[in-house]
Amino acid sequence: MLSFEQKLDNYATLAIQIGVNVQPGQTLVINAMIDSGQLVQLLVRKAYEAGAKLVKVNYTDEAVSRMRYDHASEESFLEAPTWFAGEMIELAENGAAFLTVISSSPDLLKGVAPERIANHQRTYGQAMAKYRQYQQADKVSWNGLAAPSPDWAAKVFPDALPENQVNMLWDAIFAAVRADQPDPIQAWHDHIDKLQVKSDELNNKKFQSLHFVAPGTDLTVELPEGHIWAQAGSVNEQGTTFVANIPTEEVFTAPLKNGVNGKVTSTKPLSYGGNIIDRFSISFENGRIVDFSAEEGYETLERLVNMDEGSHYLGEVALVPFHSPISQSNILYYTTLFDENASCHLAIGSSYAFNIDGGKTMSSEDLAAKGMNQSITHVDFMMGSSEMNIYGITHDGAKVQIFTDGNWAF
Amino acid sequence: MLSFEQKLDNYATLAIQIGVNVQPGQTLVINAMIDSGQLVQLLVRKAYEAGAKLVKVNYTDEAVSRMRYDHASEESFLEAPTWFAGEMIELAENGAAFLTVISSSPDLLKGVAPERIANHQRTYGQAMAKYRQYQQADKVSWNGLAAPSPDWAAKVFPDALPENQVNMLWDAIFAAVRADQPDPIQAWHDHIDKLQVKSDELNNKKFQSLHFVAPGTDLTVELPEGHIWAQAGSVNEQGTTFVANIPTEEVFTAPLKNGVNGKVTSTKPLSYGGNIIDRFSISFENGRIVDFSAEEGYETLERLVNMDEGSHYLGEVALVPFHSPISQSNILYYTTLFDENASCHLAIGSSYAFNIDGGKTMSSEDLAAKGMNQSITHVDFMMGSSEMNIYGITHDGAKVQIFTDGNWAF
Repeated sequence: MLSFEQKLDNYATLAIQIGVNVQPGQTLVINAMIDSGQLVQLLVRKAYEAGAKLVKVNYTDEAVSRMRYDHASEESFLEAPTWFAGEMIELAENGAAFLTVISSSPDLLKGVAPERIANHQRTYGQAMAKYRQYQQADKVSWNGLAAPSPDWAAKVFPDALPENQVNMLWDAIFAAVRADQPDPIQAWHDHIDKLQVKSDELNNKKFQSLHFVAPGTDLTVELPEGHIWAQAGSVNEQGTTFVANIPTEEVFTAPLKNGVNGKVTSTKPLSYGGNIIDRFSISFENGRIVDFSAEEGYETLERLVNMDEGSHYLGEVALVPFHSPISQSNILYYTTLFDENASCHLAIGSSYAFNIDGGKTMSSEDLAAKGMNQSITHVDFMMGSSEMNIYGITHDGAKVQIFTDGNWAF
Repeated sequence: MLSFEQKLDNYATLAIQIGVNVQPGQTLVINAMIDSGQLVQLLVRKAYEAGAKLVKVNYTDEAVSRMRYDHASEESFLEAPTWFAGEMIELAENGAAFLTVISSSPDLLKGVAPERIANHQRTYGQAMAKYRQYQQADKVSWNGLAAPSPDWAAKVFPDALPENQVNMLWDAIFAAVRADQPDPIQAWHDHIDKLQVKSDELNNKKFQSLHFVAPGTDLTVELPEGHIWAQAGSVNEQGTTFVANIPTEEVFTAPLKNGVNGKVTSTKPLSYGGNIIDRFSISFENGRIVDFSAEEGYETLERLVNMDEGSHYLGEVALVPFHSPISQSNILYYTTLFDENASCHLAIGSSYAFNIDGGKTMSSEDLAAKGMNQSITHVDFMMGSSEMNIYGITHDGAKVQIFTDGNWAF
């Protein structure tokens, strides 16, 4: 069994070599919270060892973020942070890689007026549009991973002794990302290869649509012509491989914007904009969200759906088996990076340009013409369970079982 | 006697109300290290209470900074951080205020190749030229204050138990900045008024030159026509008062660029660019540094003097009595913000535009024509002691004693 320091070292190695895959002479941007200093310092050292020219760390402080929502004037949330977007875009255009260490408290903004949060997200989303396009077309290498903060750990393990919560979450993360294995790099290569086999199989089938059936869910999702199933392992504009999420268990593609019909019911809570949305259902007609309900966080869901025109449509459909290791841990992380990799999921908002043939070099207009949704937001929510059955409908009308009782049927 | 929390609260109040004097609707930028979170969070809350629109905190991590010097390639230090300068300039032009919480380890960069440090400082200094001009012409409100870090506290109190060092430095800082007084705001108003009396007296004298005499020091500093003695309390372009340093004990003006002759010997170590320069002497002819020596940090001093043309000349001459409270504490802070306020000092590099009549609105060319030095650097060093005598020479040749044995003669 590896020590904490060995597992943390493995984790940092995975992030730098498999995640962003830092190249000699490259700039790396790391976004992290101030209490992730130990991991950040390891990441920085390994990035320089890999030949990084500069590692720029943007530290944030949740207490400072929350104070803004509690005390700043309304206009504070209506102005775009032009310098931040400008920096990200300049760095992306110069080939930088982007690593984000997630440790947010899942309900950091509980009690804040939802309009403030929505205004901020809209302003920020608009300012970051160009950077997001780069990201969604694989122009840059990027990766999201996580580190525990005390508040997040307390949310995940509310019944544990406070002094144990952070370490318990570290252990759960290390297991989920294979950092507890003696050769995590090899384990990741093997894992990505297995996900690639699944996406290859789905690409060969060229389904016309998918039909999801589970308690509370009866949803048909048409797929655009030329859609591509992908896994989180990608290749950027310079030809460098990277993996956008650590962990990742999904294969995913883009739905046809106007081809979603029926109803879906969530199976896990969703932390969005510092608030929890839970036990919610959404109904679609010709792709558009026409109705929704939520037992918790209805107003937050309402703000999400009304973010812009594209937030009334889906941008991603992802398949994750119920027996995935994260799901089998039975831990509810209240953080999408983990919970989406324990469950089939959909995303409200923009689609990834690489999920359609030729999409990486298409204009926004061409992508729209192909039925690819566009939005300033992209928010995954979970619908998978052991009771999920999924059928693929081929262009000649045949029905193929893809998932049986939550797991791959083939 | 006030509790730690009360003194910290006083300190934050001083920084926001007296230091940058945050105005309603203003943006405040705070630069701080990640271990100053407790103070930063207080500053942020008080800034929002004063009506700030946005408080942007730029956290840095010394371990990350040091790793860059140890591992990055040479070219990393030859490129300007354009986004950072761009952000500072944009914010300054939009009326933001700037607060820097200093906690650097005085010898953070010990052992790093001096050329790397000099390259970084030159690149950074050039990129920040415009922002520095704004600062030196009082266009924006800015303030520097300090918070202990473990490394800094260990340097100041090397013989104390490690677990006591940080608290001892906090106590020393609180005393130096009057945060231990029941009404620190009033104490600061009274203090600034007293410094203003001294600068008014010197302005009335209109000395042609100053003559500094102490062991190892025999230096004549001519003053430009129209020079203005100032204290750290200023008024920005919008008419808002601010105090650039907490603490401050000095009155200061600009020397005539080509009018400095003789030799000066340091009386305290200087932490510059993460290295210590100690027991050094500098000789001047017609303003220019023609010789220097140092028992410690010679190479660092050499890099400073050779930074650019202006770093061969002086930009500030400042008077601080030996009986100033910081000096009487007998604590050597290894940090210029404190040590310069315990000692008469000079600055190598650029002068402040507000130190000459009409300078705030003069062009660079006009300032140069008045004998005001310009440089990408400005580094104070300490020459005061109980043995310092200072004489003022009037334009009609009279000699007036200004300091006797380290203290004001009038």
